Amino acid sequence: MRLKLKNFKFLAGKPVCMIHKDTAKELGLHLGDRVSIKGKNRKIISIGDIISGTSNKNEIAVSGEIFSYLKLKKGSIVDVELAPTPHSIELIRKKLNGFRLKENEIKEIIKDISNNALRESEIAFFISGVYENEMSLEETKNLVNAIVKTGGRLKLRGKVVDKHCIGGVAGNRTTPIIVSICAATGLIIPKTSSRAITSAAGTADVIETLAKVDFSVNDIKKIIKKTNSCFVWGGALGLAPADDKIIRIERAIKIDSTAQLVASILSKKISVDSEYILIDIPYGKSAKVNKNQAEKLKSRFLDLSGKFDLKLKVVLTDGSEPIGNGIGPVLEMRDVIKVLKRTDSPKDLEERSLMLSGRLLELAGKARKGEGEQLAKKILDSGKAFKKFEQIIKVQEGEVKKLVVGKYSYSVRVKKKRRIKHINNKLINSLARFAGCPDDKKAGIYLYKKKNQTLKKSEKIFTIYAESKEKLEHAKKFYNKNKKYVVEFY
Amino acid sequence: MRLKLKNFKFLAGKPVCMIHKDTAKELGLHLGDRVSIKGKNRKIISIGDIISGTSNKNEIAVSGEIFSYLKLKKGSIVDVELAPTPHSIELIRKKLNGFRLKENEIKEIIKDISNNALRESEIAFFISGVYENEMSLEETKNLVNAIVKTGGRLKLRGKVVDKHCIGGVAGNRTTPIIVSICAATGLIIPKTSSRAITSAAGTADVIETLAKVDFSVNDIKKIIKKTNSCFVWGGALGLAPADDKIIRIERAIKIDSTAQLVASILSKKISVDSEYILIDIPYGKSAKVNKNQAEKLKSRFLDLSGKFDLKLKVVLTDGSEPIGNGIGPVLEMRDVIKVLKRTDSPKDLEERSLMLSGRLLELAGKARKGEGEQLAKKILDSGKAFKKFEQIIKVQEGEVKKLVVGKYSYSVRVKKKRRIKHINNKLINSLARFAGCPDDKKAGIYLYKKKNQTLKKSEKIFTIYAESKEKLEHAKKFYNKNKKYVVEFY
Repeated sequence: MRLKLKNFKFLAGKPVCMIHKDTAKELGLHLGDRVSIKGKNRKIISIGDIISGTSNKNEIAVSGEIFSYLKLKKGSIVDVELAPTPHSIELIRKKLNGFRLKENEIKEIIKDISNNALRESEIAFFISGVYENEMSLEETKNLVNAIVKTGGRLKLRGKVVDKHCIGGVAGNRTTPIIVSICAATGLIIPKTSSRAITSAAGTADVIETLAKVDFSVNDIKKIIKKTNSCFVWGGALGLAPADDKIIRIERAIKIDSTAQLVASILSKKISVDSEYILIDIPYGKSAKVNKNQAEKLKSRFLDLSGKFDLKLKVVLTDGSEPIGNGIGPVLEMRDVIKVLKRTDSPKDLEERSLMLSGRLLELAGKARKGEGEQLAKKILDSGKAFKKFEQIIKVQEGEVKKLVVGKYSYSVRVKKKRRIKHINNKLINSLARFAGCPDDKKAGIYLYKKKNQTLKKSEKIFTIYAESKEKLEHAKKFYNKNKKYVVEFY
Repeated sequence: MRLKLKNFKFLAGKPVCMIHKDTAKELGLHLGDRVSIKGKNRKIISIGDIISGTSNKNEIAVSGEIFSYLKLKKGSIVDVELAPTPHSIELIRKKLNGFRLKENEIKEIIKDISNNALRESEIAFFISGVYENEMSLEETKNLVNAIVKTGGRLKLRGKVVDKHCIGGVAGNRTTPIIVSICAATGLIIPKTSSRAITSAAGTADVIETLAKVDFSVNDIKKIIKKTNSCFVWGGALGLAPADDKIIRIERAIKIDSTAQLVASILSKKISVDSEYILIDIPYGKSAKVNKNQAEKLKSRFLDLSGKFDLKLKVVLTDGSEPIGNGIGPVLEMRDVIKVLKRTDSPKDLEERSLMLSGRLLELAGKARKGEGEQLAKKILDSGKAFKKFEQIIKVQEGEVKKLVVGKYSYSVRVKKKRRIKHINNKLINSLARFAGCPDDKKAGIYLYKKKNQTLKKSEKIFTIYAESKEKLEHAKKFYNKNKKYVVEFY
């Protein structure tokens, strides 16, 4: 059926269209059915809502997501059809029932996720199926390939390196520091980051406090040409649209399966042509994984890297306590700048960054075994890393400036002298999320002291910052419920 | 924040609101956040989209679902706030991770499902968690109670009986026949049905071809007072809103966990005050369950009925082949009318209906053990059952009329003389669904012959009916892919 395109100028986070109830009847469309909309050159599948007012029978009103994808003027004629129930739903059920999926089956699911043929609830069933029944090495390899295939690719020249941390440690924002150090040595390090899944902030969320992170593939090539590097959000790039959608959905429930985690990381590295890759797996009490899981993950990474001809090194690090003082985009960026500027650095963040930089420099042949960390420290001390950082931020249309935190705050103090035994990563992350992280950049937690440090009577343990009163209240409520476990004392 | 209510006159299948981008910023709202909208007396939680055109900063444009729930005039002032991330998400993750849920935890999840605090993807995670990790008897009992508690209740006088079939057998529409027979004996049988989950039609879909099925609780009381019975859709009743949402979401993927299945059935029976309940579990090749699962389900039903003081009987029946000739709402209703009118009845449908009616009459004390089926046949032969059926349909604002099938059709024939070995319930159901069932009432399959019957050369095996050309094509494509398995021959 041919209908006139109307830009409804609303964003739903996914393609949604509205069709007049009489037209819906004619088309055989029921609420929530899949609709395919074909323009001159591009076709998109979307979920159909039914409208009775404000729209004409010969119109299809579309969300901003559809309008910008189709690249047509309003009033253009588009071809609207019912899209069939995708066969991939049967395959998702197969996975939920514990069966292995074949190469073409995984391809089909990922294709349907990337072109919107699957609803969010159906993608959630896929995530659950993989989470509950895991994926074999073969399935994970196929998942990586399927994700890479449905996305764009960045072809780069030179020695391309990358690093990735599986996350789970609050405040552990080593990436901007490592990238600045490595890029200063002439290595190419095209860093694409995701936004936070389970934590208070992802690297993309943090960089966004100073600069733009959503660029096209062409823009990024230019940024890398100028700086050897970039700090960009992978999601805007279209390198792995299926993975981006999966992450957005699993983010709400904070689950992350091994296969999904490994595939998500490797597919993005392959998409940007990285050859030397350092993977950081923090483990321990209140980290994302324990030692056992970390070892398992490590061998899954190593097994898979062999199938893709990557030079990959995995480092297991101590992830039992938060790293740095700030948790949340602005607060973490402040810590990063302190380390890069060599003023009042959080020591743990500095040490972790230098160690990982050293390993990556060794892997890429910039330093001999055992000498990488020294080299990294030299670059940091020389100011070259900070200069590199400033350059990248500037090229990404930003500037290194003073950052302000949320105007609503609440400080928690000890009643008497106490020594800290443990700060729980998961709970401190949850607390920051209740305060508005990662979407509210200025929200977060500032930790004044860390494990084994002593607080005097009435001294502040931490301060919660929020951008809205409501969210500060949500955070306080969460803290009061979990008081005993957020920060433990001897 | 106080905003003016604007009825956007669109239906999204769930509460959705649109807030101007500047207002969203002020509110701290990001795409897809939960928004609570408070009117004079009622409050609703919905998902927030962000709009830049057609709406003013001081307005909130809401979907039809919200507008009708709030019962306010357009232009009324409502109180709009960010709703916090519900704690039930943590509980859903707990279930996904294989843990048992406590009574208050299940209550919390079900409450949040029923008042829209959970997104569809989050409900899908809950469904998956229960599907993958099952529920204990205690959890299932708590699930039943939670569902009953969040819904309305129908208080009835007299001996209240009910029947339920777990489904999975194509065309097996015994309910309207059993209800008509039992109601004719004076028993109260307040039949609430769901729409199809995995099959081509549910009883509600089938009744809707002749009469209305969505009534308020008050309407239903009147219908039962006049007729002893009713055929209504449970979803419109609000007896179990949480369960209705779960069913809508799992319907897409066609999964149904034991706990969910049992809880869904029992909660609805308890909500309508039924005391004597007959459960029909068809099992066998291509049925929903095999013998083993049927036995397990039977004991789960019996165990639970003890906890709720219900007189419940479970019958295991042969579910390996489709019952009746028609599959799909209109086609099944035609079969039902044939049985009730005693003209050209599909024998298998008639026999199954009489057997089950007999069991229920015995359970409720209307017949002695072993004599129920005879009594049922007497009532059917006397025309009293048909009269009762006509009466109920009439009171539900319908009439027993000639029904037409979809205008697009495609017949499959045998090339040479063949004898049917098996008709696959699941595939024939899928075929009917591709043709548009259950939403397209006139879509479906008509089976000319059944198991062990012989087709002459070129004789039709079945005809597919559809309301749109596209859906007929989808069905044909599906058939051609699965030809060998839909109907098997000796």
